[in-house]
Amino acid sequence: MFKDADEQLETILRGTVDVVTKEEFIKKLARSVKENKPLRIKLGLDPTAPDIHIGNAIPIHKLRAFQSLGHTAILIIGDYTATVGDPSGVNKTRPMITYEKVLENAKTYLTQASKILDLNKTEVVYNSQWFKKMTFHDVIQLTSKMTVARMMERDDFTKRYHTGIPISVHEFIYPLMQGYDSVMVKSDVELGGTDQLFSLLVGRDLQKDAGMEPQIALTTALLEGIDGNKKMSKSLGNYIGITESPQEIFGKAMSIQDDLMGKYFELATDLSTDEIKQLIDPIRTHPRTAKVTLARAIVRRYHGDKEAEASAAEFDRIFKEHALPDKIPDIVLSPDELKDGKIWIAQLIVLCGFATTNSEARRLIQQGGVSVNSEIIDCPTLNVEIKSGMILKVGKRRFARIVLP
Amino acid sequence: MFKDADEQLETILRGTVDVVTKEEFIKKLARSVKENKPLRIKLGLDPTAPDIHIGNAIPIHKLRAFQSLGHTAILIIGDYTATVGDPSGVNKTRPMITYEKVLENAKTYLTQASKILDLNKTEVVYNSQWFKKMTFHDVIQLTSKMTVARMMERDDFTKRYHTGIPISVHEFIYPLMQGYDSVMVKSDVELGGTDQLFSLLVGRDLQKDAGMEPQIALTTALLEGIDGNKKMSKSLGNYIGITESPQEIFGKAMSIQDDLMGKYFELATDLSTDEIKQLIDPIRTHPRTAKVTLARAIVRRYHGDKEAEASAAEFDRIFKEHALPDKIPDIVLSPDELKDGKIWIAQLIVLCGFATTNSEARRLIQQGGVSVNSEIIDCPTLNVEIKSGMILKVGKRRFARIVLP
Repeated sequence: MFKDADEQLETILRGTVDVVTKEEFIKKLARSVKENKPLRIKLGLDPTAPDIHIGNAIPIHKLRAFQSLGHTAILIIGDYTATVGDPSGVNKTRPMITYEKVLENAKTYLTQASKILDLNKTEVVYNSQWFKKMTFHDVIQLTSKMTVARMMERDDFTKRYHTGIPISVHEFIYPLMQGYDSVMVKSDVELGGTDQLFSLLVGRDLQKDAGMEPQIALTTALLEGIDGNKKMSKSLGNYIGITESPQEIFGKAMSIQDDLMGKYFELATDLSTDEIKQLIDPIRTHPRTAKVTLARAIVRRYHGDKEAEASAAEFDRIFKEHALPDKIPDIVLSPDELKDGKIWIAQLIVLCGFATTNSEARRLIQQGGVSVNSEIIDCPTLNVEIKSGMILKVGKRRFARIVLP
Repeated sequence: MFKDADEQLETILRGTVDVVTKEEFIKKLARSVKENKPLRIKLGLDPTAPDIHIGNAIPIHKLRAFQSLGHTAILIIGDYTATVGDPSGVNKTRPMITYEKVLENAKTYLTQASKILDLNKTEVVYNSQWFKKMTFHDVIQLTSKMTVARMMERDDFTKRYHTGIPISVHEFIYPLMQGYDSVMVKSDVELGGTDQLFSLLVGRDLQKDAGMEPQIALTTALLEGIDGNKKMSKSLGNYIGITESPQEIFGKAMSIQDDLMGKYFELATDLSTDEIKQLIDPIRTHPRTAKVTLARAIVRRYHGDKEAEASAAEFDRIFKEHALPDKIPDIVLSPDELKDGKIWIAQLIVLCGFATTNSEARRLIQQGGVSVNSEIIDCPTLNVEIKSGMILKVGKRRFARIVLP
């Protein structure tokens, strides 16, 4: 049933950073092959936000890789942990999110995760199942298993402690909760980004304490945002969401910095290591061609081949030929919105859905990214005269045809 | 109903160390007098051991002082906290004591406390009442109210952290539990030894956080043991238990070091400040007379006047006249215990209840404190020939008459 351990290892280790410990992992894999018994691979997701982006999808793809090799994927939905509030948010002692919202997010997470995993073969577990039953006494027992010094080994805690940025005591409990999940699902391997290494190791400790063979901590690299500067994150706006449209994904991927292409190829596409080697070699492949291949490969992961080709062609047409895209949505303006046949340009942008607030619209105008019928608008207080059929363009890829009823 | 605030203050501040803050305390007292409304005074006791000694009785006497002034005494029995295990005991992650044992201890605590307090006028509250209802979520909420840096301000935590002695995460939760008790009973003042100051201040923080006027933290001095070296404690054997016999208390008190007499007078007797001043002035009072007065005053606190005088007389007789005490218990030896009419001296000491183990008995012999019919026994392996009526003496004050049936 299983491929041999060495072959599996090659697939699994792609894009990983820490394997604690590699020796133990090789042993577990070999035993799994010998006994024809799948390993239990755990990934925990806290549904605090509704969207998954290609950065936090990396460990989900790793989970999929294990699943494809015949192992058991276990997805922990941290519905209990999520309601408690964000531990990295200081002074936020109240829960930041209601349980209803968490369940709603969990639902969209699963829908999104199903783009990557075979959910029929995945054990989906909500951790409220065990945490909601715990008494104060149980919590004390759990926290007694970890020392303050051990907690302070976590990079961000050390830094915050020494720079005087408050750490709330309850933040020490989070890694313990995540570790306790591992005890409950008896995981052989836990996946996570490199920023999760500490919590993954706590899982090892708690499993050992419970008399179990400790799980392997296996981390995947964190992906920089498309702006190349920071970790990809929703709040920094430098992300590619896995549910975004093919055109949006393609366009965003085309703006990835050249020197990050190798990392994106490795972590965000299914291309083989050999293919990637060739693509990132500027002598063998023109960077522009490589970028298009990257963008297509990312779209392919979430929307399939056909959409990947279509969005590539579309992108090409717009940018090369400076032509309008095939499909431009009609935005029907109610006459009520107009005054003397005119409307404030910022308001128009908001009405078309290209900005959520007037001030965001203003910023877009000031950045020079707004045009009406190909004419750049540079005054954010302008009142535009509306003629049915005029084209509003915001940024490089967003168009609307304004229609009067 | 109430004495005026200044008069109360004098009584209350005797033997105290910290008052946080004194300004607030004076304000609360004044308001209590003005509104004729008693203050709520809290003292928490964790019934982890069965005995109260005159050291840990100090805050109970302070509570009594408040009670006598007309305020409301609240005794928190930490039955929930006690089952969790001793936080100062590292590596002891399992509860050290069963709930049954805790309740048993709580019962003897109350019996002992009734020697000091008027329990009919005391609110006795078990903290399991609120803690057993708390969910994991509630615990997280509680712990989110305190920062790690604040916890590390506690002297012993700082020291342990910097010397590498492990602090278990659950130890951070204890002060929060104690503080939460203050929120639940809405205390105006919390009493404790100086080693409790940090927890008392946590109570202030949590009350403020809950929108209440913060309690006053009022600490009493810790009493050195009769050996003069350390804090008085059961485990160090340098204590005077409040349920010990008048003779035992008197004898132990007579062994208190001269330079500690002032402190013992202040913290462990009901003598007035003026009386004490005179007693500890070696020009006005001979130290021997002062010591006898001290011993009598301590016995009086727990056994009344008559017993105090009797034990003083008895002590005098034994030590001055080298006479045997009035009452010597008969210990009836079963012939089964003897071999050729003899018994191992260590075993005899254990059978008489003067040591709990043979090795403790050996130690007593080696220290030269054991005699039979006034003859010092210096060989710990001796087999003594038993004659009915012989007197075994261990230490200065323990006698037994050995009787054969």
